[in-house]
Amino acid sequence: MTVMNLKTVSAEQALDITRPVEDAVRASGVAEGLAVVYCPHTTAAVFVNEGADPDVAADVAAALARIAPREGPYRHAEGNSGAHIRSVLVGCSATIPIARGRLALGTWQKVFLAEFDGPRSRQVFVQVVG
Amino acid sequence: MTVMNLKTVSAEQALDITRPVEDAVRASGVAEGLAVVYCPHTTAAVFVNEGADPDVAADVAAALARIAPREGPYRHAEGNSGAHIRSVLVGCSATIPIARGRLALGTWQKVFLAEFDGPRSRQVFVQVVG
Amino acid sequence: MTVMNLKTVSAEQALDITRPVEDAVRASGVAEGLAVVYCPHTTAAVFVNEGADPDVAADVAAALARIAPREGPYRHAEGNSGAHIRSVLVGCSATIPIARGRLALGTWQKVFLAEFDGPRSRQVFVQVVG
Repeated sequence: MTVMNLKTVSAEQALDITRPVEDAVRASGVAEGLAVVYCPHTTAAVFVNEGADPDVAADVAAALARIAPREGPYRHAEGNSGAHIRSVLVGCSATIPIARGRLALGTWQKVFLAEFDGPRSRQVFVQVVG
Repeated sequence: MTVMNLKTVSAEQALDITRPVEDAVRASGVAEGLAVVYCPHTTAAVFVNEGADPDVAADVAAALARIAPREGPYRHAEGNSGAHIRSVLVGCSATIPIARGRLALGTWQKVFLAEFDGPRSRQVFVQVVG
Repeated sequence: MTVMNLKTVSAEQALDITRPVEDAVRASGVAEGLAVVYCPHTTAAVFVNEGADPDVAADVAAALARIAPREGPYRHAEGNSGAHIRSVLVGCSATIPIARGRLALGTWQKVFLAEFDGPRSRQVFVQVVG
């Protein structure tokens, strides 16, 4: 399993991690299988979506903040329940097929770490099975 | 990896793809393992839910359109940010256990390709590991 | 594949199933691989999030009930469309890396079965590949 150490720089951020995930897949030597990109945090998430126009990730982040706002009728005292809820909605992992030794991403797809309660030091795990 | 070529016929659609996914699992010969159903697009998604009553998929589609509407305060100029957001919320893949050579779906579960920006030609990948 | 038989006790509940999932991973003998926790139901889901403060799971449940309410302009006649929609949003499975024979969960992460239409008898499947 590959462990990536990352830093986010703002409260909310979509960080493109496609390159290091591809590096981990290549290093595994697996030609046909699966890559799981896993975030071990509860106020962040992993998703796959468009990476060509950064406005898309900004629209996604803004929509998530409307769907599960920072301020709400929440019980949890740390003030970050909105971030936990967004993490559950988006999910803490992405599973991507590996074909011919590469991630089978679509033309416009990139892999993102979604930060909902930053800035923080974050980890992402990449596990590959063949 | 199996590549399925599909066509959606409307702007929003939940297309039942259970049968071809089951065919891909059978063709793989894997008795115990995982099937990943993966959509390489950024305005579509894959989900597992009830297939017996088509009203459920219609309710899901309508709810997603309320949660992430087509019209919004979006930056992305192509006019389909709502579709990107729904894709992130639902996710571009489903991972289903394989037991005794078959998808371990529940009684009411079917696998759907969710179209959010159709009609279009779409692909779905099925990768099986054992 | 391990089959867990569970009972939920209220209409909405987040049931911590981390312990039995860890038991299934240990029993598999797999040191490096993936565990898929899969719910074969269409009005429940599986997610990974904070387990230390039960207020977080309560906030998640309440937020999901606001995002996809029980009462809505729904077609499906059984009155549980809100539960189906929440199941699609959260997803019916979680995929977690296994490293050194254990689930690679983060410090605060626990695995939950989310009940949206209980109380009911529910099953959860755990499939492990290495």
